[in-house]
Amino acid sequence: MKSLLRLAAACACVSIAAHASAADLGAVNRINDQAFNHSQVLQTAAHLTDGIGGRLTNSPAMRKAEAWTQGKFREWGLAHVHTEGFEFGRGWWIENSRVRMTAPRPIELRAIPVAWTPATNGPLAAPVIVAPMSRERDFAEWRGKLAGKIVLVTWPGPPKDATEPAFKRQTGEELTQNSAYRQPAHDPDELDRYLENRGFAAKLDAFLKAEGALAWGRMSYREGGLVHGAGYLHQVGATAALPGVEIAAEDYRRLARLAKLGPVTLEIDSKVHFDDSDTRAYNVFAEIPGRDPKAGYVMAGAHLDSWVAADGATDNAAGSAVVMEAARILKTLGVKPKRTIRFALWSGEEQGLLGSAAYVDRHLARRPPHSDPAKRAWTLPVVTQSTYPVTPLPGFKDMAGYFNLDNGSGKIRGVYTEGNMAAAPVLKEWLAPYATLGATTVSARPTGGTDHVYMARLGLPAYQFIQDGLDYSSTTHHSNVDTYDHLRPEDLKQASAVMAWMLLQAADADAPLPSNVLPTEPVPADPFAYPDPSKR
Amino acid sequence: MKSLLRLAAACACVSIAAHASAADLGAVNRINDQAFNHSQVLQTAAHLTDGIGGRLTNSPAMRKAEAWTQGKFREWGLAHVHTEGFEFGRGWWIENSRVRMTAPRPIELRAIPVAWTPATNGPLAAPVIVAPMSRERDFAEWRGKLAGKIVLVTWPGPPKDATEPAFKRQTGEELTQNSAYRQPAHDPDELDRYLENRGFAAKLDAFLKAEGALAWGRMSYREGGLVHGAGYLHQVGATAALPGVEIAAEDYRRLARLAKLGPVTLEIDSKVHFDDSDTRAYNVFAEIPGRDPKAGYVMAGAHLDSWVAADGATDNAAGSAVVMEAARILKTLGVKPKRTIRFALWSGEEQGLLGSAAYVDRHLARRPPHSDPAKRAWTLPVVTQSTYPVTPLPGFKDMAGYFNLDNGSGKIRGVYTEGNMAAAPVLKEWLAPYATLGATTVSARPTGGTDHVYMARLGLPAYQFIQDGLDYSSTTHHSNVDTYDHLRPEDLKQASAVMAWMLLQAADADAPLPSNVLPTEPVPADPFAYPDPSKR
Repeated sequence: MKSLLRLAAACACVSIAAHASAADLGAVNRINDQAFNHSQVLQTAAHLTDGIGGRLTNSPAMRKAEAWTQGKFREWGLAHVHTEGFEFGRGWWIENSRVRMTAPRPIELRAIPVAWTPATNGPLAAPVIVAPMSRERDFAEWRGKLAGKIVLVTWPGPPKDATEPAFKRQTGEELTQNSAYRQPAHDPDELDRYLENRGFAAKLDAFLKAEGALAWGRMSYREGGLVHGAGYLHQVGATAALPGVEIAAEDYRRLARLAKLGPVTLEIDSKVHFDDSDTRAYNVFAEIPGRDPKAGYVMAGAHLDSWVAADGATDNAAGSAVVMEAARILKTLGVKPKRTIRFALWSGEEQGLLGSAAYVDRHLARRPPHSDPAKRAWTLPVVTQSTYPVTPLPGFKDMAGYFNLDNGSGKIRGVYTEGNMAAAPVLKEWLAPYATLGATTVSARPTGGTDHVYMARLGLPAYQFIQDGLDYSSTTHHSNVDTYDHLRPEDLKQASAVMAWMLLQAADADAPLPSNVLPTEPVPADPFAYPDPSKR
Repeated sequence: MKSLLRLAAACACVSIAAHASAADLGAVNRINDQAFNHSQVLQTAAHLTDGIGGRLTNSPAMRKAEAWTQGKFREWGLAHVHTEGFEFGRGWWIENSRVRMTAPRPIELRAIPVAWTPATNGPLAAPVIVAPMSRERDFAEWRGKLAGKIVLVTWPGPPKDATEPAFKRQTGEELTQNSAYRQPAHDPDELDRYLENRGFAAKLDAFLKAEGALAWGRMSYREGGLVHGAGYLHQVGATAALPGVEIAAEDYRRLARLAKLGPVTLEIDSKVHFDDSDTRAYNVFAEIPGRDPKAGYVMAGAHLDSWVAADGATDNAAGSAVVMEAARILKTLGVKPKRTIRFALWSGEEQGLLGSAAYVDRHLARRPPHSDPAKRAWTLPVVTQSTYPVTPLPGFKDMAGYFNLDNGSGKIRGVYTEGNMAAAPVLKEWLAPYATLGATTVSARPTGGTDHVYMARLGLPAYQFIQDGLDYSSTTHHSNVDTYDHLRPEDLKQASAVMAWMLLQAADADAPLPSNVLPTEPVPADPFAYPDPSKR
């Protein structure tokens, strides 16, 4: 509590007006002229998607994207274009793959190799067995039954009725409801469950290998022929022994039904490759230097890496292209802001927000190693483990604002202040010129799942934008239709303008955005809660 | 007008009560016990879809389906199980196929060979050109530019926002609105437009061949990676010269965008086969013989053929399985109806309702050949061409009722009487026991697109059921996710019960269902209409 009071006292003399920026409103129209009449955001997004395609962390395509984005930043005249590496693991890519049922009748299936599983080295044909396993205690039922088999490990649950529209924009009322404040409940078992979940893939692989199984298949979690292929065993020395594929729900359930009637044979030909030429992943940075070297910096960020079922368009070429476009716009306008504006394209986001975590660890704050050595050894940077005390690094005080974009191609409808209510009126005022383009809402709701999280958890002024959902959660997120087609050009242009303007405001404001308090201990759990037995 | 008055006079002495059936209401519960507690409809549907798969007219899979369904009818004890053939054309099937972009980067595309287009005889690689052509007058623009190319013939229009739910059941209000009566407007140009549309495929093929193009691709009309592959050049001697493929919208537009930036190379490997062992298509029939040989027959029908992008589940293994299940239920109950109950599984529906048209031509009525020899030579049976006078055949008077099911797996919500308002109160009374299961609505609205049409156009009591749409029109109809997963078990059971009961009522009713008048001339066009220039 001490630090809370101290920080509160330190902030008491700064009024909302002090955050009003020196950037004049006329800049809005110059930004818009660039964003709407001279936009490059579609060309950028098209190159990342159509041109380069899916950008798995440390894959050859991601290396291309790292080089190409730096080249673009340089071409546009940005300063201090560079990368920062962090230890990640193996590169991996799919040359091609094919999964076929060969008995009782031949049919091609829609499927994708699970990331970082090994190749089959030519077609691998074997009978299937449906053996649903989602926890270690499920192994006993299948012991002794899997030798020589391709094991279908998902329970083939019934299909869902798609009774909601796939593509949605938020109404005013939905914006209000979706952004209502909720204090995040502290969940002392969160890390344990996360580690168990992540660790299960390795345990399942070891069990299947020990049982003499040849490969495994899982069912897609979406209907309609969509597949995804996420996998997490990317560390050096952690590679799975067996090839694994994700099979479209319709195709998987067909296999499972036929297996009720008689023998079913599957043939998997997974031509994938590992690339260990460099086990470090790289974040890309570029800057517009500030006038005042002591004023710190503001930052825009989006992750450049993606899954590889398609071209990583809405997740997250969209956000990357908007961040780059904001850089291009501000550079083209020749702004000379008080604070430096830094543009970050993160890597390793899809494997646990690893790029932004590495940035925190390197520039912002340290946390002590977890007291449990098993957790300490885990792949995630220590900064993610919510240990205490947090020790700010010298760069901590320089971070004057961070804006993240990572929820598809939908236009910006507002900002989440991540529990920072002091920042709300300031951000609301800054957003005002874009209210007519739909960016109206400032919500204090804490949100997760992307690269502002580890910064926000330190009390830093790190935010993500509220966006229209479009078909992101229903259809494109991680899927094999995450292509440029699912981007919406006018939305990307709007987002580029809003991003550029918010950065300029934050960079020129007299006072930096108010920080939240530095946390000193976990928020205590509900004193009357019983552990949920279903989560055990 | 004479015949109208004569028929009206002939019917005047028959009251609604005369149609009340001898089938007692207790039969409803015995039917339901079979339909819900002893159902075989899922097993039947699963064999047609999972077991046999897509059943293109005259393909080896369709031959299997013709044999298997006859076997089932015989196993269940149905009488007079047989087929009736009609001239159709070539068999065709896909062994496998692969479409890849090979430059500017390698990527596998979602695509399907267009039905009845020839094989590539190994991988065919060539540069693409985007040359949208949808009418002959478009050819001029591309003359001299297509040699050695794979031609993308669809205009790559923008993607659509999926703002409506993909899966829908009809509310009571929607049922009322969707079934409101509308007199079909006579459209004197309908046949011309239909023929022009169908004929364009052959003209395009000839133009592309003459220009030295190597193959063509078209864009799917749905988003989300769905493909369909319908094609119509199935007649002997009409086979196209060039291989054609349908490419998923996302993949097609990516090709089109990249083609704006530089050379794009496509590789098509279409391993398809023709089968000319028998050019006749076959409808499958089975019967429960009636007590009174002079009382005629009632009939249930659904088409057994499908497209082959997937397993032809909702279109129309669903309807076929329901018709077969109704046969099984009534046979199991040992009913001895006054009239014969005939069960029909049509072939060639997808190419123009050809199986049911052949049935009309053989058993019900003839029409004179079209006065235009070009139209007379067309593939469609003459019965489809709406020429006059109609000459009823001896079997015309025996047809006492026909019920068609062909709009997916949604449960039955009522009946369309196809302009026959006299039948409405009778059908409404018959449906009454199933109102609690959602079958409430009798609509006089004329509908098209499936196998009751040519019978209904003769004034015969031929109806199709109103169904819940589910995801039929949004997702499954003809698509590569038309699999068993998209069937809804409880809906199929309900439909089986309703079908069995309606057949039994129609077969046992004292008087046959009232017919509509035999048409003697086209309904005159709106005397004040100007031809729509957009349709010219």
